[in-house]
Order: sequence, then structure tokens, then C-alpha cells
Amino acid sequence: MTKVVTVKRRALAASEARADTLRSGFAASGTLVANLISSPGSGKTTLLEATVRGLDGELTMAVIEGDVATENDADRIRALGVPAHQILTGGACHLDARQVEAGIKDGGLPEVDILFIENVGNLICPTTYDLGEDFKVVLLSVTEGDDKPVKYPAIFARAEVAVITKSDLLPHVPFDLDSVKSQIASLNPNGAVLVTSSLNGEGLDGWLDLLRARLAAKRRTPG
Amino acid sequence: MTKVVTVKRRALAASEARADTLRSGFAASGTLVANLISSPGSGKTTLLEATVRGLDGELTMAVIEGDVATENDADRIRALGVPAHQILTGGACHLDARQVEAGIKDGGLPEVDILFIENVGNLICPTTYDLGEDFKVVLLSVTEGDDKPVKYPAIFARAEVAVITKSDLLPHVPFDLDSVKSQIASLNPNGAVLVTSSLNGEGLDGWLDLLRARLAAKRRTPG
Repeated sequence: MTKVVTVKRRALAASEARADTLRSGFAASGTLVANLISSPGSGKTTLLEATVRGLDGELTMAVIEGDVATENDADRIRALGVPAHQILTGGACHLDARQVEAGIKDGGLPEVDILFIENVGNLICPTTYDLGEDFKVVLLSVTEGDDKPVKYPAIFARAEVAVITKSDLLPHVPFDLDSVKSQIASLNPNGAVLVTSSLNGEGLDGWLDLLRARLAAKRRTPG
Repeated sequence: MTKVVTVKRRALAASEARADTLRSGFAASGTLVANLISSPGSGKTTLLEATVRGLDGELTMAVIEGDVATENDADRIRALGVPAHQILTGGACHLDARQVEAGIKDGGLPEVDILFIENVGNLICPTTYDLGEDFKVVLLSVTEGDDKPVKYPAIFARAEVAVITKSDLLPHVPFDLDSVKSQIASLNPNGAVLVTSSLNGEGLDGWLDLLRARLAAKRRTPG
């Protein structure tokens, strides 16, 4: 067991060094980088589609998609005219900095205002992997149940932004929004919580404003 | 990297030996064991609650719950009068055979007709871990989207039973049931697909009949 832990620690240290290199590059280009994490089917790609539509013509964007299999998600983004690169992990349950570094090169992604990294659909594994991002975003759909933040505390504690998705389904599911907000607040007192629906547009303005504000703040801060 | 692979392979071999021991014990006691796997919030615990209610007085049952954090799920099962043991994995994204073995002892679980193992909410990591079960059940809620089987092919290929959950929400979400059935059929030609709602009861009779039939078949088959 000790051997496993040592090997894992070494791999993690190498990955962290790579993440630092990525972060320096993003600072130099003034690119805001968001790392999106959630269960499968919480609506990461759909939120990105709505984001791309909302910021089209105002900011330049690119997307790195992480999936176990299929190019489907990258295809959905490309269909909107935004460059996207699909990373296929085979069986792995998260992206790492090495894959993101290679993905930017292999995908020939241009320098942009905002780079979105859509992690593999998983509420656990991606939590501890630094991809050089400015902040992590955790998504939770109202259909997943209102007990999830305390059941998956690590990601809700680390993500600076929590986006509750599919709010249009609130009338049809048992979901105590106040309880979820209070669970997240207890895990992450400084985190932002947004309630959104990519279907009817609720809350999307707040999400776009958050991105604009974080990009402006990054560019005000000397590298 | 080779070192990591070697260490992992050794750990997996040890885990497989433990799973075989567990399987022999379950064969001796005539216990049917189902390993439930899905994303967080697909409705595993809710299906188990409905199952316990449906088979109450007819068959004896016990549940092992796997979660990163909280005793919530075991508490929900115990509230229905069925013995349950909660395994907390800390950060780990799946259960292993050692934890199940220890859980049965530590939880003082009695010999029963059916033991349900509710794995950690994760559509990737639990796929390759044998827990000594008779079969894996993968759950997919209609709110997660109809692209999931091909995006997470390994678990849909391995699970002998796929349960589509939350069918009561079909009128409110874009979900092509025929496409999902055909994706699953292509990954797993011999698998069973059930469409259910734990809320309005749709399809639950079929699920209970499947459990009855598998238990009867197991007891007909010599050790």
C-alpha cells in the first residue's frame, strides 16, 4: 500500500508542476480558464452551448472536452463555430494537466479570452487534479437530489462556483433548494451559487456576468 | 508508469481472490447479490426503498451502502426495517471486495435471500471491481440524457441489467428512449433493459419479477 501511495504522490507532483506551467501560459495570454466538473448528465455541455451563444461576438472561446468515449461533446461545440478538442481518456475518470497541455497543442487551439475545460462526468475523481485553471465550477442538476453536496463534500468545498442546473424541472422533482444552498455555504463559505436553466434561460445572465467579471479581474491583476 | 501498473495489477488480483471467496459464501447461503452502479442521483437508494417495500414479507433482504461521505443512505434503508451497513470510502470512487467482506462482518448483517450492494455514485470506477455479486445493475435516469450508454460504454457492456429510472419525468425532458435501448443492445446484446419510475411505480413489477427469477435460478443451480 505504501508503495502505491508513494508512486501516486510522485505522479501527482509531476502533474502539479505541469499545471503550474499551464497556469503561467494562461496568465501570459490573459486567458481565463474554467474547469467544469459534475456527474454525467448534469448539463455541462448544454451550459457551454448556452454560454457560447451568450458570449458570441463579445469574447473568444475554446473548449477542451474530456470523455471516456465518443467525440459527441466536441462536435456539439464545434457546431456552434467554437474550436473544441476532444480528449478521450479510455477508462480514466478525470483529466490531468499533461492531457490538457497535449490537447491544446494537438487540437491546435488558438489563444482565446476564455478556455472551458469540461472534465469527465464524475463528481469524485476530478476534484484533486489541478489543470492550471483559474477556478473550478461544480454543476448539480435539480434532478440529482438535494442530498448531494454533503455526500460529495470535496468538490463542493473546492469549486469556487456551484451552478445548479435544470431549474425548469423544479416543479416536477423533490429538491429543497434552500437546503442545497445551505449545504454548499457550510462547505464553502466564499463560494458563489447560481441557479440556472439552459432550457428556459433562467440565471444565465448571472453566469455570463460572473465570467466577464472574472476575466476582467484576471487582466487587471499583474501576471 | 510500469511500476504503477504492476502495483495496481497486484492489488486487483488480491481483490479478485477476495471476490471469489465472497461468491463461494453467497453460493453456500443461497444469497442473490446485486451490485447497483450509476451516477450520483440516478435513484439507486430510491429504487432500493421501492424494492424493499415490494418484497417485504416475501423475501429477506440486506443492503450495503457505499458512499464517499454520510450515513444518509443506510439510514433510509434502516428506516424501512431492513438491515443496512454504510461503508464510507473517504475519497475513493468505488467499493472493493475487501470492504464488502469487512462490511458484512462489521455490520453484523444476517444471511438473507437478497443482498443489495449500492456502489459509490460513479459511472466509471466501479465497473471493473468484482464484489462477489451475481450481477451488476446499471441505472440511468431519463434526466441524464440519451447519449450516456455510448459515452460510458464499459458499464453498460458489463451490467446484465440496465434500469432506466425516473420515467415519470419523460414528458419534461428530451430523452430518446428507443435510442438508449438500441445503444444498450449494441453494447450488451443479452442484457435486460427495464424502464421504471420509483415515484409512480411504472416497471417496478418487472424489476421485482427479475429478482425473484434470478434468486430461483441461483437456488436451482448446484453450488
